[in-house]
Amino acid sequence: MTNFFSSDFKLGILGGGQLGKMMLYDTRKYDIQTYVLDSDSDAPCKLACNYFYQGNLMDYETVYNFGKKVDVLTFEIETVNVDALLALEEEGKKVYPSAKTLSIIQNKGRQKLFYREHNIPTSEFTKFSNKAHLTEGITNNNIKIPFVWKSTQGGYDGKGVSIIRSGADLAKLPDTECIAEELIDFKNELAVIVVRNPSGEIKTYPVVEMEFHPEANQVEYVICPARIDAQVAEKALAVAKKVSEAFEHVGILAVEMFQTQDDKILVNEVAPRPHNSGHYSIEASYTNQFEQHIRAVLDLPLGATESKLGGIMVNLVGAEGYTGDVLYKNMDKIMSMKGVTPHIYGKKQTRPFRKMGHVTIVHEDINEARKIAEEVKNTIKVISK
Amino acid sequence: MTNFFSSDFKLGILGGGQLGKMMLYDTRKYDIQTYVLDSDSDAPCKLACNYFYQGNLMDYETVYNFGKKVDVLTFEIETVNVDALLALEEEGKKVYPSAKTLSIIQNKGRQKLFYREHNIPTSEFTKFSNKAHLTEGITNNNIKIPFVWKSTQGGYDGKGVSIIRSGADLAKLPDTECIAEELIDFKNELAVIVVRNPSGEIKTYPVVEMEFHPEANQVEYVICPARIDAQVAEKALAVAKKVSEAFEHVGILAVEMFQTQDDKILVNEVAPRPHNSGHYSIEASYTNQFEQHIRAVLDLPLGATESKLGGIMVNLVGAEGYTGDVLYKNMDKIMSMKGVTPHIYGKKQTRPFRKMGHVTIVHEDINEARKIAEEVKNTIKVISK
Repeated sequence: MTNFFSSDFKLGILGGGQLGKMMLYDTRKYDIQTYVLDSDSDAPCKLACNYFYQGNLMDYETVYNFGKKVDVLTFEIETVNVDALLALEEEGKKVYPSAKTLSIIQNKGRQKLFYREHNIPTSEFTKFSNKAHLTEGITNNNIKIPFVWKSTQGGYDGKGVSIIRSGADLAKLPDTECIAEELIDFKNELAVIVVRNPSGEIKTYPVVEMEFHPEANQVEYVICPARIDAQVAEKALAVAKKVSEAFEHVGILAVEMFQTQDDKILVNEVAPRPHNSGHYSIEASYTNQFEQHIRAVLDLPLGATESKLGGIMVNLVGAEGYTGDVLYKNMDKIMSMKGVTPHIYGKKQTRPFRKMGHVTIVHEDINEARKIAEEVKNTIKVISK
Repeated sequence: MTNFFSSDFKLGILGGGQLGKMMLYDTRKYDIQTYVLDSDSDAPCKLACNYFYQGNLMDYETVYNFGKKVDVLTFEIETVNVDALLALEEEGKKVYPSAKTLSIIQNKGRQKLFYREHNIPTSEFTKFSNKAHLTEGITNNNIKIPFVWKSTQGGYDGKGVSIIRSGADLAKLPDTECIAEELIDFKNELAVIVVRNPSGEIKTYPVVEMEFHPEANQVEYVICPARIDAQVAEKALAVAKKVSEAFEHVGILAVEMFQTQDDKILVNEVAPRPHNSGHYSIEASYTNQFEQHIRAVLDLPLGATESKLGGIMVNLVGAEGYTGDVLYKNMDKIMSMKGVTPHIYGKKQTRPFRKMGHVTIVHEDINEARKIAEEVKNTIKVISK
């Protein structure tokens, strides 16, 4: 086995945001040397890595040259130059997750085709090379309104996704390659974090549930374990595992799924890295998703994925009407609640809806945790000074 | 309330060793700005703090000037210049734990007198200003062999402590101010981590038990919760709380105690900082001792001290016969055991008995955890390349 600990071994991480920052808690814990590349000279990862490089993640030369410096290369964000990863792989560099997986996931059309080819349940869809073809498809009645429109490229955090309910919605769309997906009337939105290492060891975390705000239609709580039937959970775990194996994925794969009204499981989309839906694991799981990702990409044995306690995550996003130097109002109040752990990502400036941090609530009884989570949500406010 | 999070607030930490390193996981989590002072330019804290200063912790000017830079000053090691802390306090700087507490604890004679004055149960002792007076005390039969000899100053990690069973043992002692303590025939060695903030909020962690190697007479496992009667545990918690309150302590205080054969609790000694006996809390507790220390010194509400699961800690010390670049043999094997988390402090060089890291084992059933801990202990080896 390679000697990773307090050694000359070098792990490279593309992207230096909050996901990388949380990953660095665990590289520090294991004293694994890290190199980080990010475009922002003030990235959250800057402090706890061994070497920080500022550069454009979409630039071939920058990513290629950075990759040459390290022994294993991973990423914490998908928008990186895949050609550079391919070139590095061809030269024998270990890149996990693989360039091929990333290139499929980066394009929502290819991602959907991949599910279809691998017999992975997903909603019906049609791919269009531009807006004219999409409009033609609707005129010909091949596509029926309402449907979900997704740009095949560049979508992130809800961007590049629209629900089309009228001709007016359609008119607003940009002219890009896109897919039109069947609109699913789901009972629950679920996610499963799967982890797999190069030796093929694979483990799943428990199914989590995204609870939506009844009016705002925004995810308010990520709840582990999901409050669903055991049979549905089994099905979701099996589907998630199948996706990871189809990709021969290495590292964390977050599989987001719909539970339909008739309890079918449909894969919505995946993220090939630690994910918001797994943040609860830092406090609630035997092995958190960041440590697990590191274990996987280094081909170390995977850690236990069971929960110590029930866990709920609440995102901390910038409040509407506030832009500027951030102030976390009522932090002391939420810190006095049992089992509440705030995570502050370290962004100095807030703006409406910017992801500034998250809060985890753990409790033996998930219903108790849910009550405390609501109290947290109603108490803390991310405003400006 | 002061705005600590993603702000200009500055927390200063004297000492940059492994305790500080683990504290920095939590300052990063909260995005609290940190300044660290340590004599070693390669100290484990160097990476994740905001500003690192190299300097002698025992030098008045160095500590004083460092303290002037920060808003709140704490420490992760006791061997710091107390006069500088006193001067800073006099100027209104917040120093937690206080200079007074530290000066009492730094001197084992003063520490014992403090217990006596505050009616805190501790073993009988006599203080001698030098070796001649000690010898005289023995000759006059005021002190009976066997007894425990402790140098009043500079003792650390078992240094400056001897059990005196014969004239030969006595002959080997250095000529220093010392105390002679009654040798306690204890049933168990216990510890309680207490935390208290400036507002006077106080909490105790569960009692932990140090299990000794049957032959080597070394602590092998720290076990939480201790496998003792509830009544004894209650007594230990009450004594620990009394010690923290007597010091009007701010921050973590680790209180080490003996449980005598007749179930009395006697305070052995204390450490005014996060402590080896609380390392299990990172994985096992609702709030780990490092986060708790930060909450306390910033006068934030204290976190819950309950355990999520049973926890056991095993120290990773350099194996005998190996000196040089460290190699952690069989790390992959222990990482494949359930609920096992290694912590590597980041010291590049091993030598016999050097503290290089620790391993935590968590499990719902403490007896299961104990079995796995033994397997860990028998598997991992800290050797050199």
